[in-house]
Amino acid sequence: MVIDELRAALGEKVSVNETIREHHSKDESFHTPTMPEAVVFAACTEDVATTLRICNANLTPVVAWGAGTSLEGNSTPVGGAVTLDLSQMDKILRVSSEDLDCTIQPGVRRKQLNEYLSRYGLFFPVDPGADATLGGMASTGASGTTTVKYGAMKQLVMSLTVVTANGETIKTSRRARKTSAGYDLTHLFVGSEGTLGVITELTLRVFGIPEVIAAATMQFDSVRQAIDGVIETIQLGIGVARIELVDRDAVVAVNRYSGTDLPRKDLLLLEFHGTKESTAIDVAAAREVLERHGGGGFLQTTDEAERRKLWQARHDAGLACRAHQPNGRIFATDVCVPISKLADCIEQTQQDLADSKIYGPLVGHVGDGNFHVLLTADPDDHEMIERLEEFHTRLVKRSLSFEGTCTGEHGIGVGKIQYLVEELGVSAVEAMAAIKAALDPNCIMNPGKVIARVG
Amino acid sequence: MVIDELRAALGEKVSVNETIREHHSKDESFHTPTMPEAVVFAACTEDVATTLRICNANLTPVVAWGAGTSLEGNSTPVGGAVTLDLSQMDKILRVSSEDLDCTIQPGVRRKQLNEYLSRYGLFFPVDPGADATLGGMASTGASGTTTVKYGAMKQLVMSLTVVTANGETIKTSRRARKTSAGYDLTHLFVGSEGTLGVITELTLRVFGIPEVIAAATMQFDSVRQAIDGVIETIQLGIGVARIELVDRDAVVAVNRYSGTDLPRKDLLLLEFHGTKESTAIDVAAAREVLERHGGGGFLQTTDEAERRKLWQARHDAGLACRAHQPNGRIFATDVCVPISKLADCIEQTQQDLADSKIYGPLVGHVGDGNFHVLLTADPDDHEMIERLEEFHTRLVKRSLSFEGTCTGEHGIGVGKIQYLVEELGVSAVEAMAAIKAALDPNCIMNPGKVIARVG
Repeated sequence: MVIDELRAALGEKVSVNETIREHHSKDESFHTPTMPEAVVFAACTEDVATTLRICNANLTPVVAWGAGTSLEGNSTPVGGAVTLDLSQMDKILRVSSEDLDCTIQPGVRRKQLNEYLSRYGLFFPVDPGADATLGGMASTGASGTTTVKYGAMKQLVMSLTVVTANGETIKTSRRARKTSAGYDLTHLFVGSEGTLGVITELTLRVFGIPEVIAAATMQFDSVRQAIDGVIETIQLGIGVARIELVDRDAVVAVNRYSGTDLPRKDLLLLEFHGTKESTAIDVAAAREVLERHGGGGFLQTTDEAERRKLWQARHDAGLACRAHQPNGRIFATDVCVPISKLADCIEQTQQDLADSKIYGPLVGHVGDGNFHVLLTADPDDHEMIERLEEFHTRLVKRSLSFEGTCTGEHGIGVGKIQYLVEELGVSAVEAMAAIKAALDPNCIMNPGKVIARVG
Repeated sequence: MVIDELRAALGEKVSVNETIREHHSKDESFHTPTMPEAVVFAACTEDVATTLRICNANLTPVVAWGAGTSLEGNSTPVGGAVTLDLSQMDKILRVSSEDLDCTIQPGVRRKQLNEYLSRYGLFFPVDPGADATLGGMASTGASGTTTVKYGAMKQLVMSLTVVTANGETIKTSRRARKTSAGYDLTHLFVGSEGTLGVITELTLRVFGIPEVIAAATMQFDSVRQAIDGVIETIQLGIGVARIELVDRDAVVAVNRYSGTDLPRKDLLLLEFHGTKESTAIDVAAAREVLERHGGGGFLQTTDEAERRKLWQARHDAGLACRAHQPNGRIFATDVCVPISKLADCIEQTQQDLADSKIYGPLVGHVGDGNFHVLLTADPDDHEMIERLEEFHTRLVKRSLSFEGTCTGEHGIGVGKIQYLVEELGVSAVEAMAAIKAALDPNCIMNPGKVIARVG
């Protein structure tokens, strides 16, 4: 009946095609797929509002969909849901070189945006790896390799247009660079994973493409040495734009996968953005600090092709580590701790992996204290998934004991939902549930995600 | 009766002394003072929770108080309220040089914090001018002169402990540098002006004190030239830490007040943070850009005493412009527009001031598009206040027509409450009201502020 109403209002934009529904039943993770009842391909904010009004009146759950690259089942529907596919809302609406901002629709993808912005000498820095949609990245609170310099989605979304469950359209903020006018709805919706509303427009900060991008790599005998070096680099305010760890096991996997011959050591990859002079100063300063902490085999380049080669290990690490299990899907881990606790947290995690005989190379956005153990699971291998779940629970508890979080950048979805109360306490989660109930009283917006039970 | 209950629970911490109540009846603005029924001097989070529980049960309004430096009546009570004075909660609880963060109580003042942090070679950059408490600065969503480089309170508060109306204590986030775990309660409370809860602890990002601080000034024949220069400086990514405008009228007022002899031109003041090499590069680059836009009379220094002298005009501007009216109190204006619209907005505002014969020199955090017309009002001069209100309404509408906001950093309080719906629309303000009602169903938390009517 809800589908009939949607069809009457939106015509061909509503699909019940099985292939399309199957495509919208899962993300990149191992979490159990569920088919939506229908998929609505929205073309504009009004389509989103119409869909939400009809679904709200019918108490039908609605899940927003971007590119399906999430890792925690964030956009996987519950039973009986309608998926609202925003990928066709992919227009870049305006770019301002003077204000260093742009306004886009939520289905714009990261690479598409940067290709477009490059005409203006601009770029948007958040780089989670996947070619996600910007609406999805905002909803998940994504970040990635450049966050150490430029910040995460939280810092770079200036304003949103959001449709709430009742079909009302909210503009969260004006386009001024800063404001103290009322509650910060922008940040409430960023990271809320479609549980409070559907983003239909984003205004983002953008940056001038740096004159020079310098890349460097160094090897270490231990993760601790590498991280002590990272801490001092950041403490001294040396301008790193990316600072990534690929641990020894991941390096070995990359060598095997990509035919490279990197030393079997813990690898640190760095990038510096600026002028010729400033990057030269930064590279030399970082090298001096990292060598003092035992770093060796220093390599650097400002040539683009060379730079991509130097960073290849980082780009290949995910595929390389997952290649050993052809039917595997991603079992994501995403803890983030204060950087002073990072070496302890990684060392204990590596010991745990060894003790529990789990193959888990790791990569880390170490400048932010965030790292991923690259695990793969065959969804049908229940025993293995149980072992990974147990390992993951220990990892999260370890992170919490170090004042960290269960998710630095992937969001809660269904995969981390059991840890939220332990992380933030009952009062905080009850406040979230109260906000959810206030904005979505019928609980139609992506139910079953973020907050375990509402009302 | 509520006072008896508070006394029974909190003893000597509850005061009904008239002088104390009078001190808590107003902030630095011209807005009408109102005496609280009592003032509770909280010593710990539990005192705050006790006060809120008792007041909530008695439906008694509660207003949090820091240093009383707000400019929009943000901490001025409504009739029958209890003021919760947090100034005695002024402990710095921890500082981490490795993580570049600190945890403090809300009554810590800005200068006190920076004095303490300097022992570690660290500083907290947000500088709103007044020696406000950090709890107040977070509640107001304050920013100031360094925001162009370091961000506002919104960007630098990592986590809060907040007590809500029902006496529940919420920790909004862990201490990790980034997180995607649940709704961003931190940013919901930052800027909510005590209407959703009372902040009892803050974890803040801090920064290494720069090796070199360079200051520079330049004069311009017009505000437009100065701002075109600012836009290009920022567009090119030149690392300015502060970039402030003091307009010609304000320069004249400073000369009169401070006995200086600055040229009667629009003045731009700049500050650069970094190493000897990087600041020299930045200063030269900024000078080149600004001279191309008509800037002249370039002066610079890296000496601390000289630096203070060079910036004196900025520090004295407020007092200088308000000195002409000895009984005056501050009538704050605080619009902020996209920087591409700033020259238009300022020019039209100066024309409006001339047309309406209002003395209004101005200063601006021009790197952020935020400026203040320095108005003073005798609270008893109702005709003058009416004229200023009319001017201010035109100023806000002008800012909104340029996609700007009515408040860049002072908050809504009572002074801007009439503009919020016009700025953000009914749907957004209704969403705010719904959140307010969810977290504070009896509407005891600083009622009459931010949102005009709830429920």
